[in-house]
Parts: sequence; structure tokens; C-alpha cells
Amino acid sequence: MRVLGVDPGLTRCGLGVVDSAPGRRAVLVEVGVARSAPDQAPELRLAAIAAEVEAWLDRHRPDAVAVEQVFAQHNLRTVMGTAQVSGVVMLAAARRGVPVAVHTPSEVKAAVTGNGRAAKAQVQAMVARILALPEAPTPADAADALALAVCHLWRPLPGRLVGSRGAEAVAPSGGGRTPAQVAWARAESAARRAAR
Amino acid sequence: MRVLGVDPGLTRCGLGVVDSAPGRRAVLVEVGVARSAPDQAPELRLAAIAAEVEAWLDRHRPDAVAVEQVFAQHNLRTVMGTAQVSGVVMLAAARRGVPVAVHTPSEVKAAVTGNGRAAKAQVQAMVARILALPEAPTPADAADALALAVCHLWRPLPGRLVGSRGAEAVAPSGGGRTPAQVAWARAESAARRAAR
Repeated sequence: MRVLGVDPGLTRCGLGVVDSAPGRRAVLVEVGVARSAPDQAPELRLAAIAAEVEAWLDRHRPDAVAVEQVFAQHNLRTVMGTAQVSGVVMLAAARRGVPVAVHTPSEVKAAVTGNGRAAKAQVQAMVARILALPEAPTPADAADALALAVCHLWRPLPGRLVGSRGAEAVAPSGGGRTPAQVAWARAESAARRAAR
Repeated sequence: MRVLGVDPGLTRCGLGVVDSAPGRRAVLVEVGVARSAPDQAPELRLAAIAAEVEAWLDRHRPDAVAVEQVFAQHNLRTVMGTAQVSGVVMLAAARRGVPVAVHTPSEVKAAVTGNGRAAKAQVQAMVARILALPEAPTPADAADALALAVCHLWRPLPGRLVGSRGAEAVAPSGGGRTPAQVAWARAESAARRAAR
């Protein structure tokens, strides 16, 4: 299974492709950032990001796209541009028949660190460890995109755990849960308990 | 000059095309609503809306697209979907070389009623009067799209008034301001004073 993780953004949009097979280590395929020039008109910036995302979709043909959930409550100045980018990314995936899953930042943190409220540096260090990289990719948007892809690959399978957002958008790839998925589920419930 | 007004929304996206020439009354060309089914995956809903908007762009070949500014502060549940729709609309316009302008709800209200805080019913009644329609089109999203198109046609020309959002995205179509544009500018400053 191959997942394209997308950390949406208008100035920098993180993109990361990760492969995983049952019983195998997750493998980095490509990581990078799509950029647009802040002095351009917003619609041209969206078009620049969309063209790059489409090139990645066509080059890597992922089985799923995992996009970070955009929340309205933080950073009002940039949140609308971020949501617009997530919209054009979802459209590009839909037009290629690739299912889209949306994961919240705390789901991603829980997936890669076991703590839904982990610090950003910890998430990035774990992404590097999980993918056996010498260090976390930069900029942070690129590492965040990989964390999203890992989160999606390690998510609990549909019907096995209540409350896994986005999981229903992707057909289950196999039978039971892998050890990593069991660990994910445990970490997520722990994070949810801690958040209460 | 022909403008496609878009009131973005995932369940109902208002679309309205208005023509205007110097010294002539604004004329309704087409008005309607693009819809998507709430039980579909979000990315498929975006694709359905995008396909309809693209069909309108190709059918009417507007000189500009006027989109309502999405604000993060109201209706957190739907605002992200609305922003995503505005993103795919802006992308569709950019890919056709059509400039996009964004207008705030109060700019639209000021343009069609002279009051930036006018009630929705008043805006709709004025849209019908301006376009010489027997009554305001329904649903409200359709009338709102027409109001956006009228607002854009009546906006002050670039360089003539400070603070006219989105106006710089469209090349000036002629020399001085029309009486309607003068009225618009006056209404807008009045509304701004009132809002202080």
C-alpha cells in the first residue's frame, strides 16, 4: 500500500509518499514541498500547488491520499488559504479515483509517537526513526506530510475501532490488524484518555 | 463585461452570471445552484461542484469570477467545506485565465443596498430590482451569487478608492467611474463609518 501524505499550505505544501506492506517496515518513496509565490494572486498560487500535487499523484499513483484536517480555530489569517489548498488536493485525488482520508493533528501525533499531544520535534524525530532516515526531512511541512502518510498506513482497520476518522474512506487492505496497528489503537486511546 | 458570481458552498453553491456595459442596465444571463449529495465522500462532493462550475465557465466565458470571502469565525462545522469549494472555484478560473476577485459580505451588501449591514431579504429584493426580475431568484444562494456579480461590476475602479478588495485582480475596463461606481464608493464608506 502506498500513501501520499499532504500537509496543506499555500506558501509551503508538504508532500510525502510512503510504502508499506504487511510485516514490512514503512519505506520513504519521496518527500518534498510544493511552493507558491506569496506575491501572486491567490488563484494562481492555488493553481501552482495543484499542478505540483497532480504531478506527484501521476508519478507515484498512491492507493490513498491522507490530508491533515484543517481547523478553523487557529491562525485565522492563513487558515482559509490552507483549507482552499486541501480542497484542490482532494479534487485532484477524486479525479484520479484515489480515496482521500483526513486525519487530525492529534491522530497523527498519536500514531507516530503514542501521544496525541506530543511536541512537533518529537513527531519529527519519530518520523525519521520509523522510516530509518538519518534525520527528519526539512522543512517541517515535509516531515509532517510523511507523518500523515505513516498515520494513515498505521490506522486501525475499519470496523475494528470506533472513532477512527477517515478510515472508512479506504478499503481494508487485508485481514487482521498488524502489531503496528494494535500499537496505534492503544496509543490513540491512551491519548484520548489523557486529553479528557 | 461579464461576471460569474459564486457563493461557495458544499451542499449548495450559488452561481450567477451578469452582463454589464457602460451606461447600460446590468442584465441577468443565467442563475442557478450547483449541488452535491451530503452522503458522498467530501472529495467527491468537491468534484461534483467543480465540474458544474467548470461547465458554467466554459459556457459563459466570463471576464471575471467574483467569489464571496469565507470567514473563519462563523459556522465552524461548514466553513472548511465552504473554503474548500472556494479553492476549487478559484483553481477552475485560474486554469482558464479568468481573474478572480474576492468580495466580503459587507462589500456586497453595500454595493446592492447602500448599507454594508443590510438584512439578507433587503439584499435579495435589491438584486431583483437591479436586474429587473419579477422576484429574487431562489434559493438564497442563487440570489447571493447574483449580488456578488453585481457588486463586482459596480466596484470602484483600481486606484480610485483605497481599500477595495480584489479590484486589483481585474484590469480596469474603461476610464472614469460610472455613477453606479460613485454610489458604490459612497455607500461603502458610509457602511465602514457605521461599522466603526
